[in-house]
Amino acid sequence: MDQHIIQEFINIVGEKNVKMTTAQLLAYSYDATANYQALPDCVLSPRNTEEVSEIVKICNEHKIPIVPRGSGSNLAAGTVPNSGGVVLLFNHMNKIVDFDKENLTITVQPGVITADICSFVEKENLFYPPDPSSMKISTIGGNICENSGGLRGLKYGVTKDYVKGLTAVLPNGEILKTGGKLAKDVAGYDLTALLVGSEGTLAVITEIILKLVPLPKTKMTGIAYFNSLEASAKTVSSIIANKIIPVTLEFLDKKTIEAVEQFMKIGLSTEVEAMLIFEQDGDLAAVEHDVNEMTRIANENGAIFTKIANDEAEADKLKTARRVALSALSRLRPTTILEDATVPRSEIAKMVNKIDEIAKKYNLSIATFGHAGDGNLHPTCVTDVRDQDELNRVELAFSEIFEEALLLGGTITGEHGVGEMKAPYLEWKIGEAGLNIMKGIKKAFDPNNIMNPGKVFAKETKKRVVLQSVR
Amino acid sequence: MDQHIIQEFINIVGEKNVKMTTAQLLAYSYDATANYQALPDCVLSPRNTEEVSEIVKICNEHKIPIVPRGSGSNLAAGTVPNSGGVVLLFNHMNKIVDFDKENLTITVQPGVITADICSFVEKENLFYPPDPSSMKISTIGGNICENSGGLRGLKYGVTKDYVKGLTAVLPNGEILKTGGKLAKDVAGYDLTALLVGSEGTLAVITEIILKLVPLPKTKMTGIAYFNSLEASAKTVSSIIANKIIPVTLEFLDKKTIEAVEQFMKIGLSTEVEAMLIFEQDGDLAAVEHDVNEMTRIANENGAIFTKIANDEAEADKLKTARRVALSALSRLRPTTILEDATVPRSEIAKMVNKIDEIAKKYNLSIATFGHAGDGNLHPTCVTDVRDQDELNRVELAFSEIFEEALLLGGTITGEHGVGEMKAPYLEWKIGEAGLNIMKGIKKAFDPNNIMNPGKVFAKETKKRVVLQSVR
Repeated sequence: MDQHIIQEFINIVGEKNVKMTTAQLLAYSYDATANYQALPDCVLSPRNTEEVSEIVKICNEHKIPIVPRGSGSNLAAGTVPNSGGVVLLFNHMNKIVDFDKENLTITVQPGVITADICSFVEKENLFYPPDPSSMKISTIGGNICENSGGLRGLKYGVTKDYVKGLTAVLPNGEILKTGGKLAKDVAGYDLTALLVGSEGTLAVITEIILKLVPLPKTKMTGIAYFNSLEASAKTVSSIIANKIIPVTLEFLDKKTIEAVEQFMKIGLSTEVEAMLIFEQDGDLAAVEHDVNEMTRIANENGAIFTKIANDEAEADKLKTARRVALSALSRLRPTTILEDATVPRSEIAKMVNKIDEIAKKYNLSIATFGHAGDGNLHPTCVTDVRDQDELNRVELAFSEIFEEALLLGGTITGEHGVGEMKAPYLEWKIGEAGLNIMKGIKKAFDPNNIMNPGKVFAKETKKRVVLQSVR
Repeated sequence: MDQHIIQEFINIVGEKNVKMTTAQLLAYSYDATANYQALPDCVLSPRNTEEVSEIVKICNEHKIPIVPRGSGSNLAAGTVPNSGGVVLLFNHMNKIVDFDKENLTITVQPGVITADICSFVEKENLFYPPDPSSMKISTIGGNICENSGGLRGLKYGVTKDYVKGLTAVLPNGEILKTGGKLAKDVAGYDLTALLVGSEGTLAVITEIILKLVPLPKTKMTGIAYFNSLEASAKTVSSIIANKIIPVTLEFLDKKTIEAVEQFMKIGLSTEVEAMLIFEQDGDLAAVEHDVNEMTRIANENGAIFTKIANDEAEADKLKTARRVALSALSRLRPTTILEDATVPRSEIAKMVNKIDEIAKKYNLSIATFGHAGDGNLHPTCVTDVRDQDELNRVELAFSEIFEEALLLGGTITGEHGVGEMKAPYLEWKIGEAGLNIMKGIKKAFDPNNIMNPGKVFAKETKKRVVLQSVR
């Protein structure tokens, strides 16, 4: 990168907010996705929207890539600077700007940690529901860019359902304000919704107005073990068919349970083929009713063991298996690849069976857990990136898993995003017409392709195996 | 229109689905918006997505405008064919395609009447919450295009919150499928959200997957009268600050109440300056608690009369004033112009006072009622379109009302849409940067500008009076 341009960056953000050493560049060359890495040219920490705008103008003039980055916890290589350029950090833009109890909104800068928003508003008996598993380290800016989901998605929706307004710097440096503290706004196209989940490819988001809801008064947790996958899936469907929408409804398969038991020795029987963990929140009477009903439904569908927690400590204990699932699996092999193929909830049993078949076919170890209530599964492959032969089989296996998800009416990604990793599969979900429209939108925002280039859109779509004969 | 092109349309949809007589064209020359009218060249009733695609291809080739039209109940001149061309009707595409109780979705064609969806799913104890006042005549396709709101917006959100997937015909005739029966999907930009509320300017929507929720077990209604506007506004804020989110929280001002009393003689006192109608739904205990609390809060804030309905018949009676508000006002003068300037709910009292001032300044009669809980007000001017001098004053007054709404952090339209009527004001809300981005998106979809041209985007933005000095 031209020394002259670096001097311009220094003039904007100050010397100490420009990182350039090899060690510093290395630290921002990867994210939480296995097997993706590339060095940026420099790392900048702007202090406000105006500084972001100045940086973006320079990048646009010189066609320098910009990669906005929160905590780098994403799982689709969305923040790897694969074309070099500038990594933008939000470590200085981490303030809560406004908390409005009358309009039930909180206005934050992108660098605020998601969990900090939750604990901040909970002191006032308010609630920010989206809870990606990474929420203790992820930033809200990252959540906005990825439209992050979480465990509570079934009842409360995902990040996009709580974004009411944005300030964003467009690729030409102009500052755009969308929405507001309003409950209703139909003035033109919904640019707020378009920017949420756009993975940093359309604009740099610099301020966010979030919607809050009243904090539920109470919550209760229960679990159920099953000796067949189908029984657990039937329980999930039956809960919803009984008009119960629990706040979480989590699923663990046999392989995940085995890994957890090896790790934690919590006494799970090996005859357990599947486990459900369910939680309801709200007013006490309704919560008790729903949790009792879910237990009854599980028993009716052949659960071999059910339990309702008597208090929060016991609830925490019951939830251990889900909480440690990823850590337990990660212990088994050097590399863990966590995916998020998603299907309509009616198709969960079929999908989990297919994943098992595909794992056997490619001689891989794939365990599955995830959000059963919303069909958002996390097939997790434990492998070793140093074994190129195995890694090739992993890629083939996940290709087939994505394909099966689509054939069941699902999608290639429920909550992780496309990034670089899934870009070659995007057309499978949205078709050529959809891909062309998305490219047109990208071009309307970013004609010089400076905003997180190489993400969402791939040079080439992967060949379809079965899909092409079905569509 | 070229006879050759008409023959092509006849070949696609059949002779009886092409309307061409002057009487037929006149019937589709206007919608529910006062003072806008233009004749189309022909009116087509396609029978399926493929026929829509064929029609669109011909229109794109010959640059013929297409105006998709549901029941024409919109209030922003969104379906007036102001550039001639083809009006597309959905009277044949009015089927419920799929009802999925396991995934809680219903798939419908655009011509289905909104209220019919509600009553259809209620038989199965499910609920489609969006309830625009026009729902007994409006189509779901129209609701999708306008992102319609309604009375239940505060608790349940608006149309966009219930759209999970769309089939749409793009301006080049390609068929796009977005989303699905999924709870979570982050595969690329959110085209579903972009198409909802795009007012027919991006694509023709031909199939819709809607999300359903369990039908609330019970509901209760209360009212409160106030002898000051501020007391009613403080009650609204205080209800929310007490963490109660009622299903509806409606407001009527003195002029609306007077018109209702003249019309219905329901015994409203003339000292009443404002009225709130509130409703809660859910489990009985929670509903009773919330309605009692809202009554207590109203009394604490100086209500001069409060009442809780004992049963559904009494609830209907209490809701009479809100139900007949528009009809009562419409009786006063030949023309009624219903607007929907919207503010954050904390600003309602200020906004209503400003509306009164502006009405006095321009010597007009403007009554205000609306959805107090979400700040979505309906200032309603009773006037006479034949009086050009008065109509000029109406335009000036509404310009000032939009400006005041924006200065209070609000928007020019909360639920009616931009259409032709508000296009000159759109830039006031979204700025030049936002307008340019929206135009870029429009161009990416529709380079020949055939999809509902002359809507959303105006030839010229109205001059700002106060705004320009503030921004």
